[in-house]
Amino acid sequence: MGREFIQTIFARRSIRKYTDRPVSKEDIRTLLEAAMAAPSASNRKPWRFIVVTERRTLDALAEAHPYGKMLYEAPLCISVCGDLTEMEQFWVQDCSAATENLLLAATALGLGAVWLGVYPNQERVAAVRAILGLPETVTPLNLISIGYPAEEKEPRTQYDESRVHWEHW
Amino acid sequence: MGREFIQTIFARRSIRKYTDRPVSKEDIRTLLEAAMAAPSASNRKPWRFIVVTERRTLDALAEAHPYGKMLYEAPLCISVCGDLTEMEQFWVQDCSAATENLLLAATALGLGAVWLGVYPNQERVAAVRAILGLPETVTPLNLISIGYPAEEKEPRTQYDESRVHWEHW
Repeated sequence: MGREFIQTIFARRSIRKYTDRPVSKEDIRTLLEAAMAAPSASNRKPWRFIVVTERRTLDALAEAHPYGKMLYEAPLCISVCGDLTEMEQFWVQDCSAATENLLLAATALGLGAVWLGVYPNQERVAAVRAILGLPETVTPLNLISIGYPAEEKEPRTQYDESRVHWEHW
Repeated sequence: MGREFIQTIFARRSIRKYTDRPVSKEDIRTLLEAAMAAPSASNRKPWRFIVVTERRTLDALAEAHPYGKMLYEAPLCISVCGDLTEMEQFWVQDCSAATENLLLAATALGLGAVWLGVYPNQERVAAVRAILGLPETVTPLNLISIGYPAEEKEPRTQYDESRVHWEHW
């Protein structure tokens, strides 16, 4: 524990270029453990994870998502989905917190990743649902494209004083 | 960067009991820097942060939120809000990622915190908006209650194999 972890938060950047090195099963497991350590409303854990490493499916997702072309090169995609039978009101928030944990764990493991939004865009939801075979009760929130980085970005915050209000708006 | 930082993700637990030690301005600034390092759709950064340390306002929020009684003791509350004029489609996801960063940074600084859901519960949204003086275009996603922990919880994942699907549902 310690302040140094905050450097990992600053180091997490959207990485869209990858080497062809695959991600190990052990590291995929760590990413999922981190995601499932997120808080969830009433501890309902509405998250589901589809782990995709097959080239044919990665290509289909790349084709389906308007900003997903990096999936043609990525060795791994994880789709974070919500099971709406478990939690309707807070599922987007719970799954987003799990996603952020996953992105930070990727950074800590030396991986690079980028969050591609799916829900609430209904066209993207339908396309991803068809490719991954999701039931109607399960909604894909996003596609997370993951691999070993072939581009470098500087750590940063985007701290902006004008977005902070003290005591009252 | 390194794997050991993943321990901070496991160490983040919902902490509802606090000592009376206040949180320094420097640490509040670090929490906000971490929050604003989150990814956001098209980099729109729709987040706004209301930082509350005044006892009268903390008490009003404690009174208004059905699960917010710990705010009667907490020295600090940060409300993460979305400015819907900046981004309507993805604001909940962006603000949730920022909130998770804030919670992890709190853990790294030795603080304890808990996420109290506000949006999309319209009664809670109206109550928090009135107390904090938020304009109609700004929606409170949550209240984050923060302080030095007066309870201990073990690090954990809630990893569950049944929530993982390989290649396809």
